[in-house]
Amino acid sequence: MTRAVILLSGGLDSVTTLAIAKAAGYQCFALSFDYGQRHRAELDAVQRILAQFDDVKHKVIHLDLDQIGGSALTDKNIDVPVTPSSGIPITYVPARNTIFLSLALGWAEVLSADAIYIGVNAVDYSGYPDCRPEYIEAFQVLANLATKQGVEGKTITLETPLIDLSKAEIIKRGIELGVDYSLTVSCYAADDEGRACGVCDSCRLRAAGFADAKVNDPTIYT
Amino acid sequence: MTRAVILLSGGLDSVTTLAIAKAAGYQCFALSFDYGQRHRAELDAVQRILAQFDDVKHKVIHLDLDQIGGSALTDKNIDVPVTPSSGIPITYVPARNTIFLSLALGWAEVLSADAIYIGVNAVDYSGYPDCRPEYIEAFQVLANLATKQGVEGKTITLETPLIDLSKAEIIKRGIELGVDYSLTVSCYAADDEGRACGVCDSCRLRAAGFADAKVNDPTIYT
Repeated sequence: MTRAVILLSGGLDSVTTLAIAKAAGYQCFALSFDYGQRHRAELDAVQRILAQFDDVKHKVIHLDLDQIGGSALTDKNIDVPVTPSSGIPITYVPARNTIFLSLALGWAEVLSADAIYIGVNAVDYSGYPDCRPEYIEAFQVLANLATKQGVEGKTITLETPLIDLSKAEIIKRGIELGVDYSLTVSCYAADDEGRACGVCDSCRLRAAGFADAKVNDPTIYT
Repeated sequence: MTRAVILLSGGLDSVTTLAIAKAAGYQCFALSFDYGQRHRAELDAVQRILAQFDDVKHKVIHLDLDQIGGSALTDKNIDVPVTPSSGIPITYVPARNTIFLSLALGWAEVLSADAIYIGVNAVDYSGYPDCRPEYIEAFQVLANLATKQGVEGKTITLETPLIDLSKAEIIKRGIELGVDYSLTVSCYAADDEGRACGVCDSCRLRAAGFADAKVNDPTIYT
């Protein structure tokens, strides 16, 4: 059985991505990060989600990204915006996907995995530079050069099954695969019980997705 | 004054790289990693080295790479080889340069730095895939796409001043710039006082470099 590493934040997109990787027949190794995120409730969500999946190995890497700073998601002194902004929002965490993918790459190398799944999306997203298709293509080139596998002519493929889907399409795909979205936490400012603020960028995109998909929104709001 | 982030392990190459970045006129921000390396004495070396440089900011990021495993440098159950091997040696840490460069990239983004310096070398090196010029070129492409600066059309340039130099040439360049190599620790199995084993791959390359440069080797061996 071929192996895949799946970046699993506990949000709607990453859980759908895990379900897609399972359905594709991979032995799944989920990777989460305890990175000093203010919405740490997403890590509790990960535990509830994994209880719904058979045979998924899980690792949580501890890496406090507030050692670098520069984001409302890791710096408690910067508020999460409650209205849409133009440009790259302050919730952007500098180089976060590059950091997470590089650690996923290291684990994939140790596991001799064939694929890394990441639930980036370039349609209903917050405008982060490291969610764009050209960024993903560049990381794929790097991954082939960075590893033992690459030197030996093997490939660790970066899989981004959500990249061209709308939020509504992602939700519909997940429901087909049996994902229970009531367990997921997307909110950037979720409270300790995982209840969503309803007003941050991530909450707005999620709520619009459920509305567009004509699916009852199971999110619990504060 | 333009800013640069310099990856600083405390070894011969990275200290020479810092001296080169200083000489190029950058305001230097040195970045070290406490990553569970068995040769943790290199972090003490970093402190002694920085005392020799004026006005270098320093950050140590804590990230235990034994959370991923797969290397003699982080797994105490795998011995550091004392004889040369063919292929990629077990001292290779999966995706280490990708992980370190991604965190350097995040810090560079927060600092609005123009450059990241890394002391990789593709001549007298251990055959690690992530020291090759084609790997560095791929990370440069990624860096331009991954960041706010990239989206705004600015560049964070990856500088690799040692990549084509022999170990002897690196040593001669460092001595011109006033580097005190007695303070540096290169050994993969250095003891707590920073004394070198003399037989690991890194020690062999270093000793041969001093011999070829016809410079007295200041390394303290166990």
